[in-house]
Amino acid sequence: MLIQQTSTSLIDTLGHRRQQLANLIDFPVILWSGSNSPRNFLANPFPFRASSHFLYFAGLPLSNAAIRLEDGKLELFIDDPSPSSALWHGEMPTREEIAQQIGADVARPMAELESWLEDAATLAVQDAATWTQQSQLLNRWVLPQSPPQGIDLELAKAIASLRLTHDEAALTELRKAAAVTVEAHKAGMAATPKAKLEAEVRAAMEGVIIAHNMTTSYNSIVTVHGEVLHNEQYHHPLQPGDLLLADVGAETETGWAGDVTRTWPVSGKFSSTQRDIYNVVLAAHDACIARIHPGVEYGDIHLLAATVIAEGLVELGILQGNPQDLVEMDAHALFFPHGIGHLLGLDVHDMEDLGDLAGYEEGRERSDRFGLSYLRLNRPLRPGMLVTIEPGFYQVPAILNDANIRSKYQNVVNWQRLSEFADVRGIRIEDDVLVTAEGSEVLTAALPNDADTIENLVGS
Amino acid sequence: MLIQQTSTSLIDTLGHRRQQLANLIDFPVILWSGSNSPRNFLANPFPFRASSHFLYFAGLPLSNAAIRLEDGKLELFIDDPSPSSALWHGEMPTREEIAQQIGADVARPMAELESWLEDAATLAVQDAATWTQQSQLLNRWVLPQSPPQGIDLELAKAIASLRLTHDEAALTELRKAAAVTVEAHKAGMAATPKAKLEAEVRAAMEGVIIAHNMTTSYNSIVTVHGEVLHNEQYHHPLQPGDLLLADVGAETETGWAGDVTRTWPVSGKFSSTQRDIYNVVLAAHDACIARIHPGVEYGDIHLLAATVIAEGLVELGILQGNPQDLVEMDAHALFFPHGIGHLLGLDVHDMEDLGDLAGYEEGRERSDRFGLSYLRLNRPLRPGMLVTIEPGFYQVPAILNDANIRSKYQNVVNWQRLSEFADVRGIRIEDDVLVTAEGSEVLTAALPNDADTIENLVGS
Repeated sequence: MLIQQTSTSLIDTLGHRRQQLANLIDFPVILWSGSNSPRNFLANPFPFRASSHFLYFAGLPLSNAAIRLEDGKLELFIDDPSPSSALWHGEMPTREEIAQQIGADVARPMAELESWLEDAATLAVQDAATWTQQSQLLNRWVLPQSPPQGIDLELAKAIASLRLTHDEAALTELRKAAAVTVEAHKAGMAATPKAKLEAEVRAAMEGVIIAHNMTTSYNSIVTVHGEVLHNEQYHHPLQPGDLLLADVGAETETGWAGDVTRTWPVSGKFSSTQRDIYNVVLAAHDACIARIHPGVEYGDIHLLAATVIAEGLVELGILQGNPQDLVEMDAHALFFPHGIGHLLGLDVHDMEDLGDLAGYEEGRERSDRFGLSYLRLNRPLRPGMLVTIEPGFYQVPAILNDANIRSKYQNVVNWQRLSEFADVRGIRIEDDVLVTAEGSEVLTAALPNDADTIENLVGS
Repeated sequence: MLIQQTSTSLIDTLGHRRQQLANLIDFPVILWSGSNSPRNFLANPFPFRASSHFLYFAGLPLSNAAIRLEDGKLELFIDDPSPSSALWHGEMPTREEIAQQIGADVARPMAELESWLEDAATLAVQDAATWTQQSQLLNRWVLPQSPPQGIDLELAKAIASLRLTHDEAALTELRKAAAVTVEAHKAGMAATPKAKLEAEVRAAMEGVIIAHNMTTSYNSIVTVHGEVLHNEQYHHPLQPGDLLLADVGAETETGWAGDVTRTWPVSGKFSSTQRDIYNVVLAAHDACIARIHPGVEYGDIHLLAATVIAEGLVELGILQGNPQDLVEMDAHALFFPHGIGHLLGLDVHDMEDLGDLAGYEEGRERSDRFGLSYLRLNRPLRPGMLVTIEPGFYQVPAILNDANIRSKYQNVVNWQRLSEFADVRGIRIEDDVLVTAEGSEVLTAALPNDADTIENLVGS
């Protein structure tokens, strides 16, 4: 747990968030923080992660706590540290000290929570001990895998509308996460010439994050098999002709996430085929960021990426036809099968615990189109939203070797020409982009992404 | 998931373990592997950790799988990878390939498991999705926090008796874990002179573990406040007069753990008071290891540590009286309040998910004595057991400032003299020791622990 100086700005921030919530709903809210999830036995848990909704309104990663919000007031429920906990965990702040730190109006022991439940809405926390407690106390099922209903759904919509755009305090944390994420990627590039395994590059990157007393905001992807989109294996040896794809992000102590991908040549030099495709992906990345502006539909930014990738692949002779037509028939998705990005905040896919409630404008639903079904965000952009922009190019065997797909796209892919790009298995370039009144600000801009500078950072 | 060459020795090892189990019980057994525990949302889980009991008999960290053991036969239940999983997770081995790798007699899809449950015993897995499934399928509560009953208890006792001593395959893995753990500690010492924060030393240590494609076997302790026994904060600055206590261990890809503690001076030089106490702890450590031998009671080794610490503290003028008498009145526990160690294997506190069933010889129970209640192992030693030996000295404010304790030990502590040792907040020295037919073998012996060599490794 963090023991910080009492910060007026934290208290003000939390008060403002509560007041905004009170403007949207007229029932009390109880948010649980969560407890440790056991790993192989109860006393050996995974590192504690507080619920994101709790963090948004309580500001500190307290465990085994709850807050009650009503009419802008904050009530804290947490137990004072036990005498034996001082032996194992040291001097911990008391309930009153924590209450003071976060500006709580009242602080009570957890046992009193059951007297304050009437008509309260809540959102499910991920760990079983907590959702069991939520369900028992509220006498209804509160399950992380079930969509919220009734007042819980009203609460989810209200919180989503607040968390959709970031206040200054949030941005301060998100900038810290971005800065450490940038340093981690630079360390990964610098470590590559001496590394023999993916795991060694991962170690250099996560080492930077750990050294800043942060954690990874998701399980790192550091792989020479970038065509495996969620590759969580790190045992492959690095070969001179390989591209290394690293999708690694830092999370601050209070839970705010960074999320960046870079792809670099293990040898320090892109082959000409690798450089050609890299520049197609980079062109899509740059075009998308240039298009970000309040009012612009994020779905259109996805289609822009698709179009730029289709254009580039036509120019390289891999695709054949008119780029707009190719996008309409989802030919780009043969090589770019995922969405252009997602919301970023306290969660790396922000508020994905609420399903598509935050990502999709009310009334919209996921498309079943091959090229659009993985799009996680479908809303007009607004100032204060933070999104990722992460176009990619992949040669996924499960797609490109599928007989139905090959026959459907028989005439638009030059398979012979494609075979010349066999050394490009997977490329992705991802940055964290804040929507501003004027357009956008790339929070991770300190990390270069042009091919020449990347080569210099890797060295040899 | 690991994709290894089919290994005859893995198949033989697993077959031997099954046969040993079949010699002890006459009912079928189903062990689930477990599934991912969600972190802040379902698609962002903690790194997967398979159940230790499953790993012991299946050898591979498969997720969403189960094995059925009966009369020495092995049936594997796992689903073939779905077509969409190839997109996200790449080409995965098929059910039949996995079955071949582990020497399964039969392999079936998970859906068929429900036809093979009759009269089967099981043990609870830690993640909620799995224990829910276990409970539903077996139509009885199977909960990680509830002690096993009936045939489940018989199974627990049988497995505990097998896992208590390690076979050659287990020792091969445990030696790998020990070797990487040793390297991590050396890296931590080497990183200290340039580090400003505890977190930076932690990063150097965990970086070694990640680079070897291993994980930490528990949440690392890397702190200048060693007196907080389970300190999981890493934000303190390093000051030249501080001792840094690092309790960090590596876990191999198939789940076998290392667990080592070293304490070193941030400046590279122990003060004379730090060196005096360090040598008392080291003397206890060495005496305990010298005493390890088949047939010796582990509880007696704990008492030996207590006695050597009491003797050393009498010699330094901190305690007053006859060391044996001091131990009988638990005066050593003022400064050494935990047990001398525990079993080590697939879990860092091996089989602690079974409560004291593995750690305590049948018929024995935890003592309520201040100096003995935290003892996790109370059995006569046998060849093949792996235990930690981890004496320590701590000045815990919650103990030493307790009025009742102060008054009880009024006459045996020289509080004035103790105050001269204020720069010794916490010291622990921990190694992993295998009981052999001849005595013992320290698996972590490659990591020095004498004060002079430690100083050299830290440098300045």
